[in-house]
Amino acid sequence: MSGPNYSARRSRLIRSLKSAGVDGLLLTGEANVRYLTGFTGDSTWLMLSSAKTLIISDTRYATQLKDECPDLDVDIRDASCPMAEATAAVVRKAKIGRLGFEADHVSVAVLGGLQAKMDVIELIPTSGLTEKLREVKDKWELQQIRDAVEMAERGIGVVRASLRPQQTEKDVRYTLEAAMRSFGASGPGFEPIVGVGPTAALPHAHAGDLLVSDSPVLLIDWGAETPSGYRSDLTRVFFTGRITKQMQNVYEVVLKAQQKAIAAIKPGVRCRAVDKIARSIIADAGFGKYFGHGLGHGFGLEIHESVRMSPLSDQVFEPGMVVTVEPGIYLPGKFGVRIEDDILVTRDGHEVLSSVPREFDDAIVEYLA
Amino acid sequence: MSGPNYSARRSRLIRSLKSAGVDGLLLTGEANVRYLTGFTGDSTWLMLSSAKTLIISDTRYATQLKDECPDLDVDIRDASCPMAEATAAVVRKAKIGRLGFEADHVSVAVLGGLQAKMDVIELIPTSGLTEKLREVKDKWELQQIRDAVEMAERGIGVVRASLRPQQTEKDVRYTLEAAMRSFGASGPGFEPIVGVGPTAALPHAHAGDLLVSDSPVLLIDWGAETPSGYRSDLTRVFFTGRITKQMQNVYEVVLKAQQKAIAAIKPGVRCRAVDKIARSIIADAGFGKYFGHGLGHGFGLEIHESVRMSPLSDQVFEPGMVVTVEPGIYLPGKFGVRIEDDILVTRDGHEVLSSVPREFDDAIVEYLA
Repeated sequence: MSGPNYSARRSRLIRSLKSAGVDGLLLTGEANVRYLTGFTGDSTWLMLSSAKTLIISDTRYATQLKDECPDLDVDIRDASCPMAEATAAVVRKAKIGRLGFEADHVSVAVLGGLQAKMDVIELIPTSGLTEKLREVKDKWELQQIRDAVEMAERGIGVVRASLRPQQTEKDVRYTLEAAMRSFGASGPGFEPIVGVGPTAALPHAHAGDLLVSDSPVLLIDWGAETPSGYRSDLTRVFFTGRITKQMQNVYEVVLKAQQKAIAAIKPGVRCRAVDKIARSIIADAGFGKYFGHGLGHGFGLEIHESVRMSPLSDQVFEPGMVVTVEPGIYLPGKFGVRIEDDILVTRDGHEVLSSVPREFDDAIVEYLA
Repeated sequence: MSGPNYSARRSRLIRSLKSAGVDGLLLTGEANVRYLTGFTGDSTWLMLSSAKTLIISDTRYATQLKDECPDLDVDIRDASCPMAEATAAVVRKAKIGRLGFEADHVSVAVLGGLQAKMDVIELIPTSGLTEKLREVKDKWELQQIRDAVEMAERGIGVVRASLRPQQTEKDVRYTLEAAMRSFGASGPGFEPIVGVGPTAALPHAHAGDLLVSDSPVLLIDWGAETPSGYRSDLTRVFFTGRITKQMQNVYEVVLKAQQKAIAAIKPGVRCRAVDKIARSIIADAGFGKYFGHGLGHGFGLEIHESVRMSPLSDQVFEPGMVVTVEPGIYLPGKFGVRIEDDILVTRDGHEVLSSVPREFDDAIVEYLA
């Protein structure tokens, strides 16, 4: 399969500038710059207009830019020239009068610095122009995400096969990271969460020193990153000992909430409607106050991308979107259960990209439980 | 040694509010919030005034906040309440009229969201109030940084002892990360740079698939992170084969630039004066255009912190500051040399915290070269 067509992506963005009311756009969000150019470093901005495309960076990246973006013009500053000054010079030269900037990726301080250098150039806030394009993945991106899912799934296979009562959460995390790398991942897609018992009740816990044998509940939230920068994001709970009725009940409620929510995903459906399906099932089972976060999110070059599934989201599913569905129930001090899969919105419904078994019986690690 | 005194840190910050012209301060920078509270998660803000201290977070972190910040009041929102709304409510309740915010850590979009909810509350940009406090490390922080340096140094010892011609840059990176973790690091302090030959000429390269045997020059830029979140940052070049006269010359120029710059560090000296010492030595040797980045930077909870050593910096050294000194010469397509150590500014001069040998002869890996 041929690689991404950066030039086509930029053309789509340029076509949206007119309705955004600007002559040119300054891109400062790292993932947006990567999406539009293929450049994998940081501290590097992209200026776009129908007449001119230019990367603004510094000497640290001069050679890397030649390798990664051979077709693009590059303006390289050294340590004696601040970014705002370099940017103002190229914008002036490109004769852009109304310059859009990314309000989500420019701090108030950086905007102040730009305004001080821009003279008569008008700086116009824009929001989500590139993120909107990134919501719908193209064929090449979908292959990257499928690869990231596969790396993650093979990785968890190694973890499950090697689980031992005396492993710490950290041991499990490092085993998982090494396994995913052995299957071609550049690394984990984010810091893997490995939580035993009460730690599993913290939705965003750091892997610590609890032992697998400290509780029958082990939660792992993990994903891989491909060398091309695309991610996967999955969660499974493993039962590694004798469990309580409540643990089984919570697991089955979460799984039902997840499966019903997934079943509702198709083009034209509102994200918050899917969130509501899962949230209602959990509330009806009496656990409403133990599920506070949103149901899921888009992902790709970043682990959290547009779209969002939450009670507040009025976004609508379109074919080509890829989202997590990850309801959870967290009982503070006791344990937590979250089940998370990666879902592609297709033309007439959806496809579950991840296939790690998720039934209650599958969660029981026989040789430990 | 007793742990950090978060309450004293907050008191120092509160005392600075008056001269900043605000009644209260909203902290949104992740490392600043951690420095002032000990909280290790994200998406969590801190509101401070002389009358009230409050953390604003969401349900994902409710339990973790109780564990990590047991003395602080916490406002927990769920997925149906946006952050700006929760924040406006607590600021209103605290009767703050002029609320400072961190212009470096609030995007233009987030500021817009806050303004829409804040009614009569005036939002005043501030810059660097907490970063200024963080420039000077306290006794506890210095011990964390010494630990991070030691973890990094023991890690590179393992790498050097196990170097083989057929290792890839990635192999070396993963060996280093695992070794640092085995010595107690929570992980690397940043993505380690491991560059062979031409890759070493990219100041911010990703470790790739070149073999150690592909060039006699191997550059490693690495550091450890302690479980408490403090980092180290070092660079060494190893000669793993027969080198050219130019390689030796470049190495010696960089080392001389580094040593002369370090020698000049003491309280009262301007950062840019130290930058100039190194830059002049490199320029005089004819390599001026091959050293484009700043000479060094502060570090601690983040890998890049105030102060900065660059031609633009008018900051002045004070006792308790910790900085890198890392000149480099990068010959595109050929090789690069950077030598980096971690320096503590003392009352009457400086102390070099890192002790990995750095003389030319030390750089030669005997059993390979």
